Amino acid sequence: MEKMVLVIGAGDAIGSAIMRAFADKEYVVCGARRGGEKLEPLVEELRAAGKQAYGFSCDARKEEQIEDLFAQIEANIGPLDCVVFNVGANVPMTILDTDTRKFFKIWEMATFAGFLTGREAARVMTKRRQGSIIFTGATASMRGAAGFGAFASAKGALRNMVQSLAREMGPQNIHVAHVVIDAAVDTDWIKGMLPDYEERKANDGIVNPDDLAQNYVMLHEQPRSAWTFEMDIRPWNEKW
Amino acid sequence: MEKMVLVIGAGDAIGSAIMRAFADKEYVVCGARRGGEKLEPLVEELRAAGKQAYGFSCDARKEEQIEDLFAQIEANIGPLDCVVFNVGANVPMTILDTDTRKFFKIWEMATFAGFLTGREAARVMTKRRQGSIIFTGATASMRGAAGFGAFASAKGALRNMVQSLAREMGPQNIHVAHVVIDAAVDTDWIKGMLPDYEERKANDGIVNPDDLAQNYVMLHEQPRSAWTFEMDIRPWNEKW
Amino acid sequence: MEKMVLVIGAGDAIGSAIMRAFADKEYVVCGARRGGEKLEPLVEELRAAGKQAYGFSCDARKEEQIEDLFAQIEANIGPLDCVVFNVGANVPMTILDTDTRKFFKIWEMATFAGFLTGREAARVMTKRRQGSIIFTGATASMRGAAGFGAFASAKGALRNMVQSLAREMGPQNIHVAHVVIDAAVDTDWIKGMLPDYEERKANDGIVNPDDLAQNYVMLHEQPRSAWTFEMDIRPWNEKW
Amino acid sequence: MEKMVLVIGAGDAIGSAIMRAFADKEYVVCGARRGGEKLEPLVEELRAAGKQAYGFSCDARKEEQIEDLFAQIEANIGPLDCVVFNVGANVPMTILDTDTRKFFKIWEMATFAGFLTGREAARVMTKRRQGSIIFTGATASMRGAAGFGAFASAKGALRNMVQSLAREMGPQNIHVAHVVIDAAVDTDWIKGMLPDYEERKANDGIVNPDDLAQNYVMLHEQPRSAWTFEMDIRPWNEKW
Repeated sequence: MEKMVLVIGAGDAIGSAIMRAFADKEYVVCGARRGGEKLEPLVEELRAAGKQAYGFSCDARKEEQIEDLFAQIEANIGPLDCVVFNVGANVPMTILDTDTRKFFKIWEMATFAGFLTGREAARVMTKRRQGSIIFTGATASMRGAAGFGAFASAKGALRNMVQSLAREMGPQNIHVAHVVIDAAVDTDWIKGMLPDYEERKANDGIVNPDDLAQNYVMLHEQPRSAWTFEMDIRPWNEKW
Repeated sequence: MEKMVLVIGAGDAIGSAIMRAFADKEYVVCGARRGGEKLEPLVEELRAAGKQAYGFSCDARKEEQIEDLFAQIEANIGPLDCVVFNVGANVPMTILDTDTRKFFKIWEMATFAGFLTGREAARVMTKRRQGSIIFTGATASMRGAAGFGAFASAKGALRNMVQSLAREMGPQNIHVAHVVIDAAVDTDWIKGMLPDYEERKANDGIVNPDDLAQNYVMLHEQPRSAWTFEMDIRPWNEKW
Repeated sequence: MEKMVLVIGAGDAIGSAIMRAFADKEYVVCGARRGGEKLEPLVEELRAAGKQAYGFSCDARKEEQIEDLFAQIEANIGPLDCVVFNVGANVPMTILDTDTRKFFKIWEMATFAGFLTGREAARVMTKRRQGSIIFTGATASMRGAAGFGAFASAKGALRNMVQSLAREMGPQNIHVAHVVIDAAVDTDWIKGMLPDYEERKANDGIVNPDDLAQNYVMLHEQPRSAWTFEMDIRPWNEKW
Repeated sequence: MEKMVLVIGAGDAIGSAIMRAFADKEYVVCGARRGGEKLEPLVEELRAAGKQAYGFSCDARKEEQIEDLFAQIEANIGPLDCVVFNVGANVPMTILDTDTRKFFKIWEMATFAGFLTGREAARVMTKRRQGSIIFTGATASMRGAAGFGAFASAKGALRNMVQSLAREMGPQNIHVAHVVIDAAVDTDWIKGMLPDYEERKANDGIVNPDDLAQNYVMLHEQPRSAWTFEMDIRPWNEKW
């Protein structure tokens, strides 16, 4: 039977790369994001290469939408082996500059959507007692730097939730993992932010999404006598 | 001039003990909680002992209420030297058993109210470039154990926010600290939960709120060449 | 040109499995341990399977022996691409029961030998500006539990040294990593220690050295835009 | 009966300040260092102020000297209530630049002497089932930065040993604590190192040893329902 993966937060960089990496291994790949139509080029590209790929629109902060997404995929495509949660963007600002709406929204995207995703994945997987759920973390998951309070709060909240989930799901044969990206990843947003983008990209000083994505496949495929909960990722020349 | 402290989340155990500890040192003490009338006995007790004490009703999750509380105290009583945030109760349950309403409410109490409190305290204190803001943390601030996902998520979120705040406020001469209570504290709730409560209490095996409260006073009074961001607290015979 | 790996602390379980895993990928594998003759069966097994394998006697606590080992391999076999340090055994005892000789010896094996190995590997690799150095850690690397003071001290010392080395070597294109094994691994020693060994082994409740070893190969082969410094490993049903 | 404290590593700055702080609280204070005659001015100063103070020569890396020191004090002066370990100096250098002698010596001073001190203090205190043992840590206790490998290794080793000791001694009513100084302290050495020393000192930007020392007294005097294992210390304007 075919193996299936769902990437929630299937953005242009990391999420798409994870879909490609699993497709390369002949997984059936599903991607979901707000504005799912943006996934069409990727889905077409993968299908043209002979892969099975599907794109979905889903606001991962909405309980009903997450529940529908899982129900639809499990009913119409097949049982999920791996679910990846990759939502949440950094918005640097001091606590004094953070309004309540932003503080809430950053949590809603990075934490609450992750909780909904993790819980729903756990629900379908516990029935079969197998599967993996992998979350994307960041440096801010580990500590709150000046100027990153709202984001660090939300990513720390996600990490602690994921730790609890890992400890609850492990004995049910479900592998929960957390990838801590401690560096800039090559995205359009970063391209605009980093003055030395071209130089960094040329010498592998920015995380290549395809290189990163290999770790998600690897984590999912780890045999169960030797599971990893957490691993960090950064380029060779990153200061840390 | 008199020194002033405000305790938000002035519950019967820890919050009240912190108020008493500061009152013992002749601080003017203000306490706030939902149902502020519950603070009346403590306020009367302190006044009878010749202290200045005030009780307030405040739902710390409401931006307007927090803003009003600070405005009222600063206008009518005096400038705050120290603000303590002590809201947030543990509700153990697995992620699979956590409904979205509970996940949100636990975050709203433990994290969001802490953000509102910290931000408002920072606002009034940065004008004067002095003061302390102290937050109560827990074991769950540091990691997510099985059965504690929602609480660990919220307390981890608080801790990372507080770290950012500490790094932003330090250079403004405002001391931000986080007290990690890694044990049961002697409260009515714990009394009902622990089968060996009496034995533990008799041999100091539960945190005595008065002993705990001394650390908040100590943190506030640390000279600025030697500030503590974080300290843990547990009884002598606690397993950790 | 052929790729080469050296495993220092090539014991019967983990070290041998790492050698096999790299040999499977057609690396030339060198193993070193005290009493290198014990490596003969493995070397013969690998050669019989058409691999290139070498065994060496080396007391990794002796500077001259480590220096000789590297010199000999680099001169006679070829340039090392990957060096793995896997020395150090746990000896549980309380601090009160730890004599100075044992405290020193545990440090000498787990820390000092790791320093010598890491430094020598760094020396040969910095000339070529490439390579990986991977260290085996343990739960005790992260914290000192009761009854594990000497071992935790030595493993914590190794980890901090390895962190410094990683930060110093990264910008020289040399990948330094630390694998934290948070569980029992299937070794003869564990077989005698765990009352439920057979049951655990049958259901993957003990780390299988071959499963573990895959992670060392994976770490060495990570592209340099996405290097991992640290990852933890434990079986699916391990309590943590 | 009089309370007694012993400071091992009673140097001119921190150690002396700890002695003064305890003497201010009417403790009988003992200090030990290599070249104990250097303690004479402090001992005389304290005695002139009506305090009881004693200075000892002791190389804390020598088992017999530590054992003799404790035996002598307990026999001739009285039972120790608190022992402070404050040995170990930072020597920045890369791993490649670290010779084996230095790596060993830094461990011997920062870790091994701490083990000897902690074990001997535990021995005398477990008989009476009371007392405190407090260790001085540093940023390097928590992680290995580039250029600090040997020191970080030794301080990490000390910290993990101290954690084990704390967990073993707690249930015996002995309080073990670790103070993490995350900044420069005002010492002669720092005075020579920091180009902006005068400016920093003038605005409390360097840890004042007397301010720091208060925390050791506070830790020793914490009631046993609320003990702290670890606290960090840094000036208000320190970047972290």
